Amino acid sequence: MDFAVIGGDMRQAALARLLAADGHNVCCAGLEGGGVECFPPETALEGARYVVLPLPVGGGDYINAPLSGRGIGAEELTGLICPNQTLLAGKVEGRLAELIKERGIRFADYFTREELTVRNAAITAEGAVELLMREMPVTLLGRRVLVVGFGRIGKLLALRLHLLGARVTVSARKSADMAWIECLGLESADTRRLRGRLGGFDAVVNTVPAPVLDARALSELKRDCLCLELAPKPGGVDTDAAGELGIRVIAAPGLPGKAAPESAAAAIKEAINNIINELESE
Amino acid sequence: MDFAVIGGDMRQAALARLLAADGHNVCCAGLEGGGVECFPPETALEGARYVVLPLPVGGGDYINAPLSGRGIGAEELTGLICPNQTLLAGKVEGRLAELIKERGIRFADYFTREELTVRNAAITAEGAVELLMREMPVTLLGRRVLVVGFGRIGKLLALRLHLLGARVTVSARKSADMAWIECLGLESADTRRLRGRLGGFDAVVNTVPAPVLDARALSELKRDCLCLELAPKPGGVDTDAAGELGIRVIAAPGLPGKAAPESAAAAIKEAINNIINELESE
Amino acid sequence: MDFAVIGGDMRQAALARLLAADGHNVCCAGLEGGGVECFPPETALEGARYVVLPLPVGGGDYINAPLSGRGIGAEELTGLICPNQTLLAGKVEGRLAELIKERGIRFADYFTREELTVRNAAITAEGAVELLMREMPVTLLGRRVLVVGFGRIGKLLALRLHLLGARVTVSARKSADMAWIECLGLESADTRRLRGRLGGFDAVVNTVPAPVLDARALSELKRDCLCLELAPKPGGVDTDAAGELGIRVIAAPGLPGKAAPESAAAAIKEAINNIINELESE
Amino acid sequence: MDFAVIGGDMRQAALARLLAADGHNVCCAGLEGGGVECFPPETALEGARYVVLPLPVGGGDYINAPLSGRGIGAEELTGLICPNQTLLAGKVEGRLAELIKERGIRFADYFTREELTVRNAAITAEGAVELLMREMPVTLLGRRVLVVGFGRIGKLLALRLHLLGARVTVSARKSADMAWIECLGLESADTRRLRGRLGGFDAVVNTVPAPVLDARALSELKRDCLCLELAPKPGGVDTDAAGELGIRVIAAPGLPGKAAPESAAAAIKEAINNIINELESE
Repeated sequence: MDFAVIGGDMRQAALARLLAADGHNVCCAGLEGGGVECFPPETALEGARYVVLPLPVGGGDYINAPLSGRGIGAEELTGLICPNQTLLAGKVEGRLAELIKERGIRFADYFTREELTVRNAAITAEGAVELLMREMPVTLLGRRVLVVGFGRIGKLLALRLHLLGARVTVSARKSADMAWIECLGLESADTRRLRGRLGGFDAVVNTVPAPVLDARALSELKRDCLCLELAPKPGGVDTDAAGELGIRVIAAPGLPGKAAPESAAAAIKEAINNIINELESE
Repeated sequence: MDFAVIGGDMRQAALARLLAADGHNVCCAGLEGGGVECFPPETALEGARYVVLPLPVGGGDYINAPLSGRGIGAEELTGLICPNQTLLAGKVEGRLAELIKERGIRFADYFTREELTVRNAAITAEGAVELLMREMPVTLLGRRVLVVGFGRIGKLLALRLHLLGARVTVSARKSADMAWIECLGLESADTRRLRGRLGGFDAVVNTVPAPVLDARALSELKRDCLCLELAPKPGGVDTDAAGELGIRVIAAPGLPGKAAPESAAAAIKEAINNIINELESE
Repeated sequence: MDFAVIGGDMRQAALARLLAADGHNVCCAGLEGGGVECFPPETALEGARYVVLPLPVGGGDYINAPLSGRGIGAEELTGLICPNQTLLAGKVEGRLAELIKERGIRFADYFTREELTVRNAAITAEGAVELLMREMPVTLLGRRVLVVGFGRIGKLLALRLHLLGARVTVSARKSADMAWIECLGLESADTRRLRGRLGGFDAVVNTVPAPVLDARALSELKRDCLCLELAPKPGGVDTDAAGELGIRVIAAPGLPGKAAPESAAAAIKEAINNIINELESE
Repeated sequence: MDFAVIGGDMRQAALARLLAADGHNVCCAGLEGGGVECFPPETALEGARYVVLPLPVGGGDYINAPLSGRGIGAEELTGLICPNQTLLAGKVEGRLAELIKERGIRFADYFTREELTVRNAAITAEGAVELLMREMPVTLLGRRVLVVGFGRIGKLLALRLHLLGARVTVSARKSADMAWIECLGLESADTRRLRGRLGGFDAVVNTVPAPVLDARALSELKRDCLCLELAPKPGGVDTDAAGELGIRVIAAPGLPGKAAPESAAAAIKEAINNIINELESE
């Protein structure tokens, strides 16, 4: 199988290496700073069966390619793709989405794959553990930590913190989630009724993309409580209010690609392999 | 709040005690052998706001009441219920379901509550650990165990076995489940491709209500491998084939009420409280 | 290598099978009810390099042999042993110890091996978990459990209970043990200052061979608190006082041989192998 | 109680704050850069009952005081101590040890306290987890890690890595340690027989102060295997050979004070409190 791997960051470069290590022919473009040999896009695409764009691929006129000196236009790139080639990209939107539709390109968005979302949650959870360890002057052992939200990241992070000896409370809204939290041996709380309980925590990690930690909630926190924001922008912590109160907030978007680029690349490779298996068994 | 608690087993008797301990007036019927004071159904229902029937309530002409010497007819009981009373029962079907509909009784089936399903899964998981410990001449520590299925019970059981030092493999079908299994630190397998891998296990626990362990699969198992069937009847293990092969299969239906009746009662009480809160906030 | 395996219970029978499975010639005596072929002691010992007696071997006139119809005298047996044979036995004392000394028999007590003590502690810990699960009408999940003593069994049991979701307190006396307990993520308490804290526990497990739970301490316990006694007789729980208070005490001596005889046999086999390796490398 | 806290790094400054937070009068010297008010040594010592020097206190002519612009001589300082004052210091040796002896100063070395050694091991274990997460381009989840040595740090680190989903092997020499390792659910190896098994690891952590990873052992490692050296100098990894082979070795001495200075200070405070309690109950 032949792959063209185009644009992206160190994770994309790691993906190219992993695909090559699996025995595929891999040809890269727009990854000059990633330690892989690069070619002009038209050369890279020649003969490729799958064209792999990065996560996120970017919704503007150019493909996301921070490691390259030259821009790769979405229009230029889609113009190079032949009918027998399949485009694989992550978080497709904006200009690229339009072009794919207009030009009838065979295409799959690997970011929609649940297995990738789960793997990224696990990498994010471990990255969050590392961040908490690094930023706090105390061990996680024995510390009281609140995880707001019991989605994928909340689940995997809370379990890890608990097993490292932290005293973990997880807040959620649904009664079934409360049951899950307690059945995993964790303490539960209602996200809507955190007030009056917040003063006891040494760290608070938010995973919910809704305003859960507003000025009044933040004012309850100890001044040396660390807030870690894992929800996508604008997040759930009122950073202005936190600033006024003197509470540190660390936002950590895009942890998978930063904390463990090779594991993040392996997760994308798995999603791509699953997509290809499904396409080929059709 | 006044409750009439009718029929059921030791779990239902425990439920009556828990409700009373919460400060409610509780009046029982059909629970004579359960160590609680009992009255005729008409007396028990008098003045009650909620009438609590057992899990499972039974789909025939009589309410499930194994601890009572006298039968409590579904027709008789539903005839006693006033318009201002609410019936709470578990797994309502058959005759009782018809009568509830015909007579327009205000009603909720607590068995449909997800929080109860989760709690029951946790009790089942712990009961299964106990069973494996009891039935095997070896410790779980160091043993290779296959859990077939990654539903609620599969998840909670696999984690417990892993933390007790067993070497756990969980089989599933969906690629997202595979990712979850591995992100929890467990070994994954494809339920459709277990053949050729079954010879290494010391115990196999099935949670899937589909024929996953047929004669050919069973023939691969070591002769002293223990099979634990947790799926509802007819289960997923071919017991006839197992018998011919000399492989022990232990079926363990209804574990929550047997392994930990008080915890099982507490889980029903929680579901009932949530139902009542929702009804009263309407 | 040739072994004579003499006397003992199901664990000793399992040991004979494990040694045979390793490729040794094994000849048994005094194990008739254990499902292994037996011979008269003189036949069994003929040609054996190692003579393996059970754990405990018994300090009286006869070797401990509950599965045999006939008695095997310590005097008779030691009289059969040749100078080129080595006797391996567990917990040697009393008459047998005297005879070994008098007759100058080459000999090792495998019960003194630390690796066996550790393995037995792990089997005991798992057996104690099973017992608590069986005897309590609630799940260990969420339950408050006190483990008195932080020796081998206390360590391994407390960790298992914690990982199963119980809220575990371990009591000890030394400040270094307190530190260990907390560094494992557990709650610590001072065994000398348990009074005033005992009312909150759902189960108490004693591992200390000293009177730690006297009448006054027991009177603080909830009436439905379960006491599990794991210390050797006379143990640390005042059973008379418990009886008067209506508190259940379950004594569970000799758990390894009962809860997991095959794992217990494997642990003895490992100790024997280590002894033999050291003898032969001398 | 009155304390003089003299010299040291951020950990010592945190210790001063913790003692003050406990309600003691605390007076500092030689900690100017640590965010605490400082006085000349003679002022700080005036009226103090306990004089607390840092860990390590330093064996030369001057007390270890990296946050101070001026040197505090061991001779000068010991000259200021009155007969009713007690000196508490960590790792006392060299010049200071001589002076204490000559001048008959009442004194205790808190570094000899086992509870402090255990707490420091736990902080080191967590710091090592953080380092591995930071330095590896992959998650610990799923990674094969070898921990060489089963002392305090080895135990606590191996458990944490295992619970985070790494596949952990611990190597030791004693058969009892092998049993412990396996009874904790970990894989064991013999430190003297690592050859032939080293090629499979993604990271190796050494805790043994002896040459365990020599050139020949290192040559077996994968080129991208990370070596973490936790043993005190000269450590157990041949760094020259590693350099020639292109294998990264990270030495991380003094982790407690760096990774979690406040937890490290709390551990010293606990040791000091225990010493004082013992002195005062004499």
